[in-house]
Amino acid sequence: MPHGTRHLFIPGPTNVPDRVRRAMNVPMEDQRAPDFPSLTLPLFRDLKTAFRNEKGRVFMYPSSGTGAWEAAIQNTLARGDKVLMSRFGQFSHLWCDMAVRLGLDATIIDVEWGAGVPLDDYEKAIAADRDHEIRAVFVTHNETATGVTSDVAGVRKLLDAHSHPAMIFVDGVSSIASIDFRQDEWGVDLAVAGSQKGFMLPAGLSFLSVSEKALAASRDNRPKMDRCYFSFADMITNNDNGYFPYTPPTQFFHGLRTALDMLFEEGLENVFARHHRLAEGVRRGVAGMGLKLQAVAPQWHSDTVTAIRVPEGVDANAVLKIAYERYNTSFGSGLARLSGKVFRIGHLGDLNEVMCLAALASAEMALADAGARIELGSGVAAAQAYYRERHAAGAESREAAE
Amino acid sequence: MPHGTRHLFIPGPTNVPDRVRRAMNVPMEDQRAPDFPSLTLPLFRDLKTAFRNEKGRVFMYPSSGTGAWEAAIQNTLARGDKVLMSRFGQFSHLWCDMAVRLGLDATIIDVEWGAGVPLDDYEKAIAADRDHEIRAVFVTHNETATGVTSDVAGVRKLLDAHSHPAMIFVDGVSSIASIDFRQDEWGVDLAVAGSQKGFMLPAGLSFLSVSEKALAASRDNRPKMDRCYFSFADMITNNDNGYFPYTPPTQFFHGLRTALDMLFEEGLENVFARHHRLAEGVRRGVAGMGLKLQAVAPQWHSDTVTAIRVPEGVDANAVLKIAYERYNTSFGSGLARLSGKVFRIGHLGDLNEVMCLAALASAEMALADAGARIELGSGVAAAQAYYRERHAAGAESREAAE
Amino acid sequence: MPHGTRHLFIPGPTNVPDRVRRAMNVPMEDQRAPDFPSLTLPLFRDLKTAFRNEKGRVFMYPSSGTGAWEAAIQNTLARGDKVLMSRFGQFSHLWCDMAVRLGLDATIIDVEWGAGVPLDDYEKAIAADRDHEIRAVFVTHNETATGVTSDVAGVRKLLDAHSHPAMIFVDGVSSIASIDFRQDEWGVDLAVAGSQKGFMLPAGLSFLSVSEKALAASRDNRPKMDRCYFSFADMITNNDNGYFPYTPPTQFFHGLRTALDMLFEEGLENVFARHHRLAEGVRRGVAGMGLKLQAVAPQWHSDTVTAIRVPEGVDANAVLKIAYERYNTSFGSGLARLSGKVFRIGHLGDLNEVMCLAALASAEMALADAGARIELGSGVAAAQAYYRERHAAGAESREAAE
Amino acid sequence: MPHGTRHLFIPGPTNVPDRVRRAMNVPMEDQRAPDFPSLTLPLFRDLKTAFRNEKGRVFMYPSSGTGAWEAAIQNTLARGDKVLMSRFGQFSHLWCDMAVRLGLDATIIDVEWGAGVPLDDYEKAIAADRDHEIRAVFVTHNETATGVTSDVAGVRKLLDAHSHPAMIFVDGVSSIASIDFRQDEWGVDLAVAGSQKGFMLPAGLSFLSVSEKALAASRDNRPKMDRCYFSFADMITNNDNGYFPYTPPTQFFHGLRTALDMLFEEGLENVFARHHRLAEGVRRGVAGMGLKLQAVAPQWHSDTVTAIRVPEGVDANAVLKIAYERYNTSFGSGLARLSGKVFRIGHLGDLNEVMCLAALASAEMALADAGARIELGSGVAAAQAYYRERHAAGAESREAAE
Repeated sequence: MPHGTRHLFIPGPTNVPDRVRRAMNVPMEDQRAPDFPSLTLPLFRDLKTAFRNEKGRVFMYPSSGTGAWEAAIQNTLARGDKVLMSRFGQFSHLWCDMAVRLGLDATIIDVEWGAGVPLDDYEKAIAADRDHEIRAVFVTHNETATGVTSDVAGVRKLLDAHSHPAMIFVDGVSSIASIDFRQDEWGVDLAVAGSQKGFMLPAGLSFLSVSEKALAASRDNRPKMDRCYFSFADMITNNDNGYFPYTPPTQFFHGLRTALDMLFEEGLENVFARHHRLAEGVRRGVAGMGLKLQAVAPQWHSDTVTAIRVPEGVDANAVLKIAYERYNTSFGSGLARLSGKVFRIGHLGDLNEVMCLAALASAEMALADAGARIELGSGVAAAQAYYRERHAAGAESREAAE
Repeated sequence: MPHGTRHLFIPGPTNVPDRVRRAMNVPMEDQRAPDFPSLTLPLFRDLKTAFRNEKGRVFMYPSSGTGAWEAAIQNTLARGDKVLMSRFGQFSHLWCDMAVRLGLDATIIDVEWGAGVPLDDYEKAIAADRDHEIRAVFVTHNETATGVTSDVAGVRKLLDAHSHPAMIFVDGVSSIASIDFRQDEWGVDLAVAGSQKGFMLPAGLSFLSVSEKALAASRDNRPKMDRCYFSFADMITNNDNGYFPYTPPTQFFHGLRTALDMLFEEGLENVFARHHRLAEGVRRGVAGMGLKLQAVAPQWHSDTVTAIRVPEGVDANAVLKIAYERYNTSFGSGLARLSGKVFRIGHLGDLNEVMCLAALASAEMALADAGARIELGSGVAAAQAYYRERHAAGAESREAAE
Repeated sequence: MPHGTRHLFIPGPTNVPDRVRRAMNVPMEDQRAPDFPSLTLPLFRDLKTAFRNEKGRVFMYPSSGTGAWEAAIQNTLARGDKVLMSRFGQFSHLWCDMAVRLGLDATIIDVEWGAGVPLDDYEKAIAADRDHEIRAVFVTHNETATGVTSDVAGVRKLLDAHSHPAMIFVDGVSSIASIDFRQDEWGVDLAVAGSQKGFMLPAGLSFLSVSEKALAASRDNRPKMDRCYFSFADMITNNDNGYFPYTPPTQFFHGLRTALDMLFEEGLENVFARHHRLAEGVRRGVAGMGLKLQAVAPQWHSDTVTAIRVPEGVDANAVLKIAYERYNTSFGSGLARLSGKVFRIGHLGDLNEVMCLAALASAEMALADAGARIELGSGVAAAQAYYRERHAAGAESREAAE
Repeated sequence: MPHGTRHLFIPGPTNVPDRVRRAMNVPMEDQRAPDFPSLTLPLFRDLKTAFRNEKGRVFMYPSSGTGAWEAAIQNTLARGDKVLMSRFGQFSHLWCDMAVRLGLDATIIDVEWGAGVPLDDYEKAIAADRDHEIRAVFVTHNETATGVTSDVAGVRKLLDAHSHPAMIFVDGVSSIASIDFRQDEWGVDLAVAGSQKGFMLPAGLSFLSVSEKALAASRDNRPKMDRCYFSFADMITNNDNGYFPYTPPTQFFHGLRTALDMLFEEGLENVFARHHRLAEGVRRGVAGMGLKLQAVAPQWHSDTVTAIRVPEGVDANAVLKIAYERYNTSFGSGLARLSGKVFRIGHLGDLNEVMCLAALASAEMALADAGARIELGSGVAAAQAYYRERHAAGAESREAAE
């Protein structure tokens, strides 16, 4: 029986703020009450702000992010539709797998695990698609398995460059509300997020933010996949009045109200800046320990999760087990082909500098215990130096602003 | 801003016991931790006990009950499969609607709203199906919209009588864990339940209890519907080790642990007896007020929800609105064709006699305010008399047993 | 193991609103943090508003109300000081007992249990005290044991009429924040309240609201009683800056913040009106059952607790036991000489009409089970009629106001 | 508005475990219910175990520890009684101050702030007291202001050596349930503890563990101080049946139930060993940073709080302010004469290694920001080395035991 804080540094579920936990600890209520929409309608509105989606709408499903992936596909595509995808980690892999299983005709580009969406290859495929048969291009914004962030805006640019009408699907489960995301500006048609990451809620609710174009696609005459649970149409009929086609998890709505309030109080730009600062400290810490990232170049560095290569001869799974059992710390494991080679530090959501230092201190001990040659304190020191410097810079810029 | 308890008498979500709320108020945890299965594996085992399903298995989906309906169909049936259904209220109606939208070839028997599954008509259809083309027979165990309970065992008997191999699908969302349900004994193949009713949890988790035969059907060579999120196979691979194919809502598992403990501490038989006692008191109360039920005969009386006809000239929606605004009480509304004609008292889950009396007292006032001729106290008195008598009988039988 | 709501109708601790419970469920914090006063200073200010005490101050002690009684005496009086008291129930009895044990020279007037502070006798004693040796006059504003409210303003008037300088001590534990109380207007010098009654918090914090005159008395040259824990001076030094002389229960401060917000959102006048309305309904209910109150005349009726005489031959303790064991209901017991003759319904704090009807319905059954001849529903019906009438009147006056 | 965990390293209130917070989040209940003693009687029994007090009894007061100090004195001593005390930090100072204010004739020995109870001086005073006029010897077991632990057993020995009948009073607020304490074996007569330290509860409840001899003293014919709120006799009459003389804070009892369960599940010896291990790591860390403790020699090292001297020229208050504002960390301040010279790390209660490393990492940054020459990571590294070594040793001894 461990004592004290269970240190949670997985890339989701993330640490739910006390304020959100309090907000969710409510009695059940009547989801058909006359004043229920006064809770839900502002949530729909504010979620659109969080996605930077002015003209479309956001759906909330009682499901994991996987459910929202399926919702996106079922409502806008049909069996046999051509789509363009890429695979460079376990989550982009699973998305491809879903597409195939749901009957899409997917062109899947395999990329080194450690890089992201291959803009060049995508451009070639788009350029070659003269007849505009590709109905959708899929982008895993943040590949949680490798700690890699892709360039969504770049995909938009190349579609525009070729005047290609394909929709853009984005998996933003581990990016949205933590990393800059601009649905309208980037012309994203379907963006998937989950409650348990940047939205700082428990798992159990997914968000699907949909553009006008995607909504139109869901309504046009082409047949789509069979669906009921995830149907846009059923949702829209009810959501427009603040209600739901089936019993929604009302306690989540109270938590979401508070989570959105917290995001807006901090300011989304500041949320992103904080995630960047915390992440960069962790990366400095990893470098300070003499270790390498799974991300193959700085352009791919994720500000929500860092996948760390353990030294040759060390078993990353041993590091995880030691961290968990001796040091009350949960890190993310290496998934699929990365098992045993990588462990991951999730650094998103309700987090601060000293929590990141705790993660690094714990990782140093677990690595050393597992046989890695790590100078104790080296990672912590590198991160501390960076965090102090950023505070000094922040103080300076605040002073300059006065 | 109302004061005091918001009296919740809708047929779900039900009142979550304080003990369950406490149990769910946990920090997030690592759903891939080595000791996570010590939480989840006993839940799978104990859910089977709750469903009286010894040989099959139970799935837990992050979804509403509607999702579990869809899971049941997608995994075991194919487009064009013939099924036998009946419709006698809004929820059986919605299930039929789903079946049709998912492409099943459904024979739907319409029944008076106030009665339940028509065994005679089912028998005729089964008898006529010499070639055993009907793959599944659907039974809404408890129609929440009308307060009607159907005879699942009767469906089993008629299938057996005709040696018909069709699977039995049961919607037990508002019955299971509140009303007697015996999956193995009744040969039910797919039974759907939700967290927010008899299981006394918030909405957000659904349960699908599946027989060996249904599992075999999901695995046989016949093609089934496209699916990922609700796929049995993905679940089984992970569940067998205590894990999940996507992020599960771990806080629900802690709540479910406590809810199952509470059900077993009371004893399922006692849970059913309590529901019957409380329900019968409500029915006596309704009769005491001089009102009628939507259920057309005692054989259909539901022990979890009572749908009450308002007198001619009274608007049931006005009753609901008055109860909500003046008396802090939420009753269930009349759905679809029953709108304005019926209001419903949900009496399932964590409930006791005095709560039911409060419901009746509140209903009397709201009815009177809405123009009904109700003798104040008449419903309460009838229910009190019954509850006192049952306590006396209970005390007697306890004494006799000693 | 009972199911459903434990119906709590004792005159304190009262039902803590969910909103307050949520607010109190906070991590511990540094009670010497630089921003801690931003929590505490507004509480001191708003408590003064709740007591209608503009010029004095309010102390918060980690203690029960008994502690605040002791604080009031220790800081302003000395052994041998003459005080005027009256005794007409268990709580006024205990206060007298404390005064004697702490060495005061108390003139104690015994009054029938069922009446309140005897203004005539007080006037005689004051008139006779030509040398102004009586330093303080004690008033139990609301005697919780008998359901009797006394006339504090009347005591002020008679002191003024005789130009007598005695301080007025008020036990307002079960009145303040529920019943009209005006410290400045009534010239009350020391008013005691507790967290667990009208302030809707758990037990554990007491409030002592002190006039300028009482503060001056605590500082003058006359020796006072020995004290440290309850010392005004230690508190003042620290409270002025928002801190405390010893570790305060910070979680209560968060709860108090919310409780005060709720009181002010409703408006104190409306809080008092609601308590009167709920109480009058309970009294009508008692009369409807054919029972009598312990309060001997309407002028003494308390709006926070009703003490009910059981019929001859019925044991009130049996009523309590039956209500608790069969009907999950806690009523207050008859204390001291009222044991077995009286049971009490507490109706203060976070309460509404239907909760009071539940209390009456439960009481009817328990009384009947204990052998009383009670027409079931009779009390409920009388209360319902009153509540409906008040709602109609309220609606009318709201309309007239528009 | 800070994000993430507020890191709390003050020496109380300590971090309340989630399990305890959950246990305390209960509705109010009837403190006179027939089954209430089934909650409270085991608490009294188990508190005795925690104090190692077999024959005496433990009182629980709704108060801070200061209240229990006062209770100890009021019930067993009289104005003018001679007592022997020592003063070596802010809390022993305050206790002396209370003794004087309550009228005791206290011989107070001043000791360097950084050492503890002066056994030699105590022995001289005891030896000189031939007529046994000294009624009580006071021992601050753990001086929270300086991080110094005194030798209680040593005081027992010297009293025994001189066959002196004086009672021993112990302030164990920041030691009991964290550091070894043996009331019976050490012949302690009155031991004071508070809820918000080793007992891992919020502030608001104090414990006073009393020997048979002290109970006898409270009952003998000598007059004692005036008292009501803290009276042993009132408590005993009620506690013996599981009740209280005034409304107790029942929610604390549920939290205490869980806290005691946690202490016993871990085992008190293991609790003490954990506190020692965590504390020693912090001390290694402080040494690693090149800083000194306020405790002047290892014999005085406290396992619950470490007071750290900042380097010359650095303002400890600046360190505190920076830690709080930049790094979301609360440390304890230097009190009274130590203000500006010392900051304190509380390391007691629900705590683990990585939390202590976080405290050290945060302290390093705050010290450096405040101008101290600190090698970043140096303290963390020294503590990590120690923690890893202890885990290795622990693993070895566990293996040897198998």
